Amino acid sequence: MEDSDTMSLTESAPEAQPEATSGRRGRGAAARRAQRSGGGPGISMPFITRKLGVYEVLDEEGLSLIERNADKILEEIGIEFRDDAEALALWREAGADVKGERVRFPKGLCRELLKTAPEVFTQHARNPARSVQIGGKATVFAPVYGPPFVRDLDGERRYATIEDFRNFVKLAYMAPSLHHSGGTVCEPVDVPVNKRHFDMVYSHMKYSDKPFMGSVTAPERAEDTIEMCKILFGADFVDQNCVTLNLINANSPMVFDETMVGALKVYARNNQACVVSPFILAGAMSPVTVTGTLTQILAEVLAGAAFTQLIRPGAPVLFGTFAASISMQSGAPTFGTPEPALVSYGAAQLARRLKIPFRTGGSLCGSKVPDAQAAHESASTISMTLLAGTNFALHSAGWLEGGLVSSYEKFMIDVDQLGMQQRFAEGIDLSETGQALDAIAEVGPGNHYLGCAHTQANFQQAFYRSALADNNSYEQWLAEGEKRIEERARALCRSWLDSYVAPELDPAIDEALLAYITERKDSMPDAFT
Amino acid sequence: MEDSDTMSLTESAPEAQPEATSGRRGRGAAARRAQRSGGGPGISMPFITRKLGVYEVLDEEGLSLIERNADKILEEIGIEFRDDAEALALWREAGADVKGERVRFPKGLCRELLKTAPEVFTQHARNPARSVQIGGKATVFAPVYGPPFVRDLDGERRYATIEDFRNFVKLAYMAPSLHHSGGTVCEPVDVPVNKRHFDMVYSHMKYSDKPFMGSVTAPERAEDTIEMCKILFGADFVDQNCVTLNLINANSPMVFDETMVGALKVYARNNQACVVSPFILAGAMSPVTVTGTLTQILAEVLAGAAFTQLIRPGAPVLFGTFAASISMQSGAPTFGTPEPALVSYGAAQLARRLKIPFRTGGSLCGSKVPDAQAAHESASTISMTLLAGTNFALHSAGWLEGGLVSSYEKFMIDVDQLGMQQRFAEGIDLSETGQALDAIAEVGPGNHYLGCAHTQANFQQAFYRSALADNNSYEQWLAEGEKRIEERARALCRSWLDSYVAPELDPAIDEALLAYITERKDSMPDAFT
Repeated sequence: MEDSDTMSLTESAPEAQPEATSGRRGRGAAARRAQRSGGGPGISMPFITRKLGVYEVLDEEGLSLIERNADKILEEIGIEFRDDAEALALWREAGADVKGERVRFPKGLCRELLKTAPEVFTQHARNPARSVQIGGKATVFAPVYGPPFVRDLDGERRYATIEDFRNFVKLAYMAPSLHHSGGTVCEPVDVPVNKRHFDMVYSHMKYSDKPFMGSVTAPERAEDTIEMCKILFGADFVDQNCVTLNLINANSPMVFDETMVGALKVYARNNQACVVSPFILAGAMSPVTVTGTLTQILAEVLAGAAFTQLIRPGAPVLFGTFAASISMQSGAPTFGTPEPALVSYGAAQLARRLKIPFRTGGSLCGSKVPDAQAAHESASTISMTLLAGTNFALHSAGWLEGGLVSSYEKFMIDVDQLGMQQRFAEGIDLSETGQALDAIAEVGPGNHYLGCAHTQANFQQAFYRSALADNNSYEQWLAEGEKRIEERARALCRSWLDSYVAPELDPAIDEALLAYITERKDSMPDAFT
Repeated sequence: MEDSDTMSLTESAPEAQPEATSGRRGRGAAARRAQRSGGGPGISMPFITRKLGVYEVLDEEGLSLIERNADKILEEIGIEFRDDAEALALWREAGADVKGERVRFPKGLCRELLKTAPEVFTQHARNPARSVQIGGKATVFAPVYGPPFVRDLDGERRYATIEDFRNFVKLAYMAPSLHHSGGTVCEPVDVPVNKRHFDMVYSHMKYSDKPFMGSVTAPERAEDTIEMCKILFGADFVDQNCVTLNLINANSPMVFDETMVGALKVYARNNQACVVSPFILAGAMSPVTVTGTLTQILAEVLAGAAFTQLIRPGAPVLFGTFAASISMQSGAPTFGTPEPALVSYGAAQLARRLKIPFRTGGSLCGSKVPDAQAAHESASTISMTLLAGTNFALHSAGWLEGGLVSSYEKFMIDVDQLGMQQRFAEGIDLSETGQALDAIAEVGPGNHYLGCAHTQANFQQAFYRSALADNNSYEQWLAEGEKRIEERARALCRSWLDSYVAPELDPAIDEALLAYITERKDSMPDAFT
């Protein structure tokens, strides 16, 4: 057996070099090897195409009950679109009943509008081998989004910086099982708040060649994202293709605010994808029940997603669901518990009936450290994410402490688990090699399979090889210093960052991006709040 | 809100008293509360009746391919029944082709024999409220089986003792989400090897009132188990009802040895349940592929399970599967990886087609400590266990280090997770309360649900309350000493053991059991190997 687990992780074997410059090798033999082994850094796997079915928790009766109730909410209670006269005018024009900022929708209006939204689309990456399918049987894993803090490689919890941001972009670029660079992988609080979107979007463009997300914190920042995409991809290409995916949270219950509506309008108008996501801590932003929460989510998504089609029919839009619950004792958010899993499974079914792609889940947890609590909560969430048939899974790596912290250690642990999810989704090989009847006949009763011809021919790609699990004997583990998984994760993370090589970027494009950023930054004063 | 998470765990609230003496309260309001809250110690939940569907990984084509291939193994390669002339004679009589110890089965023989085995049966506990259904939509969680070591409450890894054994029986008795007392919860190596089965079986009978497993390490120890069961339940009752469930491992590939066949014969003859379980480390005891492994498992189970019906038609028998894989680099067993999960999902489907109950899974892991590796591997295994539709899940709590260690801390962490699995299996409440339309109307856009009437009426049972997860603020967690989950688990475990109260046992029965044990022990010398 040629190499040890350790070798494949820490040494620079030929296949462990970043492949961006060679274009499409990512789908070849190296990628298949990566898929089996957890991968060395830089070996990207294509997005997941699920060969297994989805798990469903609601039958037709339950689904149509929730749909009827959501229609009732839309018709009788309505949804507020705040501080946006254009939105209200568009809804009035489309036939909705608008009173103040409250929009009530005639039965069927939102569903009718959504018919122009694509069921499946491609989000293009600057490296075409990294482009991803959104929708259908595809699942795309993206890193954590939003934390103002990091837990760094010295174990310190502190505010995140642009340096951390770049590190997480680099790690996501190198991680075989992340198909997407994400968006706000952490909040670079050392950069002025009104300027940091430039640095974030630029980092995704420069340090990775995977697809990424745009800024949504103000309409003009969304415009900047579009302008930078035009420099990177060309203006015509951007107008006709999705090159950025953008997180539009509803202010649940039943409100879309000025900021989110503003960003949504910019992206939809430019044919870019919006992920319309009610952000739900059940019990606070929705009822304390699964069915009630699902009903509200469906109503909110119907209104928000349909609105994208009022802006530009055909613009890609996702049914998003962020579901957690709260402790009814302390009010604290809780993650990885059964009820939010049921919500997400149900929401996935509702999205399929609407024929638009679905986003939920990730590797969510409430723990302050990457301990067994963090892992249990993350595992419960990510296995649900895959089995539900989720198309886009934000927060799949690095999320700690209820999303307040991006953790380097947890990032590495999560990435390893994502590789296992991807392997699982491949399903079962029923070929003659898979059947292995020759092996069973060759070995016979009472012997072992280690040396048989079939094993020799197939062991290399037989089982997923975890990059971080320790399966050695107790004695060996003791001799090696009784390391916990987070210590191994830290060492692996350091070795990845040390071996990072940036994907090539056309110097003329790089220059143009930097010139745009400088000009725009110079036009505004620094703001820190 | 009346009480804190902490209170419900550590104080002796009225509902936190063991309920054994009051008989059937376990299915009442206290049990429902336990189900939502993770439970205080001693509040038992009834076995799981799954309201959700199963997840399946093979279609008709795959299933019938595997069945055809397994038939071919049975017909052409055969299975060995070693050192047991009676077994060979019975097979010959039944129409099998017996050459030496190799038994080859005419097509369909094993399936035909298995038609007398029950699809669903009850394993009786001495407290009728604790009896469990085995088969159908029922899932029963039982603790870890077999470790010679413990990791104790001082963090020390050492050989297990009978004191540890009693402690784990007590903990399983007190754990709301364990429905079964299990068997060899750890190996009490301080008791002579030829006598420890008495102490083990007696501990289950004395310190718990949940159903339990019998000794399988020698036919005469199985006989002792039966005799003790007759004292506890009455001889007639034992002959007509299942009161013990017994683990019969195949020596994969394709061998049943003298010890296991001997124990199987004793239990089947006495109408007690056998769990016929190929113990598979794929790549060593089976081919390196999922389909090949499933094929061999099916062949082995068909032969072993059918044999129980030769002994006594109608004796309960389970389709068992213990599936792990090995590292093809070091040969070490690995747990919680994708391939064994696919094996177990597939085996569950094959068992349903055979119409006999199914055993697999648990909370398996290879980690040496209850860290994120342990949790990820355990979570992957236990969520598969439930979604596959497993009927009996051994190793559901306490398993550490590839089954070499029973861990007190991990036991508590696992038990908490089992409670979440049980809650999940309840599915979604579609009642008017579940729909919560009044709440949505009452709250309206932009407000919160914390104070609304529906929340006030329903929050108590709304969400699963973890006994161990910390969801407090970072600042509060810091102030409380930055505790990891295993520290909280240790404290909770101590408090459970301190508050243990034994279920009542008729003193005459207790005396008779002790007299039987004394007489039998006195009849043999101590043996330590």
